[in-house]
Amino acid sequence: MKHIILALVENRPGVLARMAGLFSARGFNIDSLTVGETEDPTISRMTIVVRGDDRTLEQVKKQLNKLIDTISVKDFVKKEFIDRELMLFKVNVDDKTKDKVKNIIEKSKDKIVKISKDYIIVEAVGDENHIKTLLSNLEKYGITHVTRTGRIAMAVE
Amino acid sequence: MKHIILALVENRPGVLARMAGLFSARGFNIDSLTVGETEDPTISRMTIVVRGDDRTLEQVKKQLNKLIDTISVKDFVKKEFIDRELMLFKVNVDDKTKDKVKNIIEKSKDKIVKISKDYIIVEAVGDENHIKTLLSNLEKYGITHVTRTGRIAMAVE
Repeated sequence: MKHIILALVENRPGVLARMAGLFSARGFNIDSLTVGETEDPTISRMTIVVRGDDRTLEQVKKQLNKLIDTISVKDFVKKEFIDRELMLFKVNVDDKTKDKVKNIIEKSKDKIVKISKDYIIVEAVGDENHIKTLLSNLEKYGITHVTRTGRIAMAVE
Repeated sequence: MKHIILALVENRPGVLARMAGLFSARGFNIDSLTVGETEDPTISRMTIVVRGDDRTLEQVKKQLNKLIDTISVKDFVKKEFIDRELMLFKVNVDDKTKDKVKNIIEKSKDKIVKISKDYIIVEAVGDENHIKTLLSNLEKYGITHVTRTGRIAMAVE
């Protein structure tokens, strides 16, 4: 049976990818997934057309409710959850600053992907605070080519 | 063939919806689409992983370039680039399997976020092969709650 699900979600980068990833990982048969603005620019409405029986639909709705971007954030506030974001970026370095920058990255337990003469490519993963702290520690050296995934979250009962 | 397209776009309301609409209307086979902030808050970086022949890809790039929000489009199939994806998931465990599962995660240098009686929460980061290998090694124990960000990429000259 075909169902249409409407969900209100925060209008944040990565929402669409997270939704799509969630559905494809579960093997749900999605006919279409659309995200559109609402009268409030901070909120988007998702329309999901999905095939399946009532049990499948219950699963879909449960999964939607688990995502951090859904407006039912109140459900999440009560539960314990973890959130993570992945980020790639370059930090400018020269002979004088290279060791200092490497030190900051190693201390925060993030990953150095490549070191070249002029820059270091960093792979950083963490929650909002972790990412913020790392960026503010490296800001003064010059950060470029920032590429972020947006956050994903998981409830931890 | 699989391509990674990086596009810089204006961070305006509705950009994602327009992009998503463009791809779904043309029936392009999108593996993942991720939008994230850059160091400039007015600009977002989109990473699109798409399958198709060269003609299809040319169409995608033309369509992207036509959009008013698009600043630049780069195709990374031939160039050197690094790509990464972040994933959270649970693996089912019991007293018999717990050590085996921990071993697999440690060997692949991914992160254990939480260990409970029945499951382990894993934070995995890597390129396509890394993620695939890890998942296939853990599959038989039972994987649930998969949440992926979609891939991001960066050119490495």
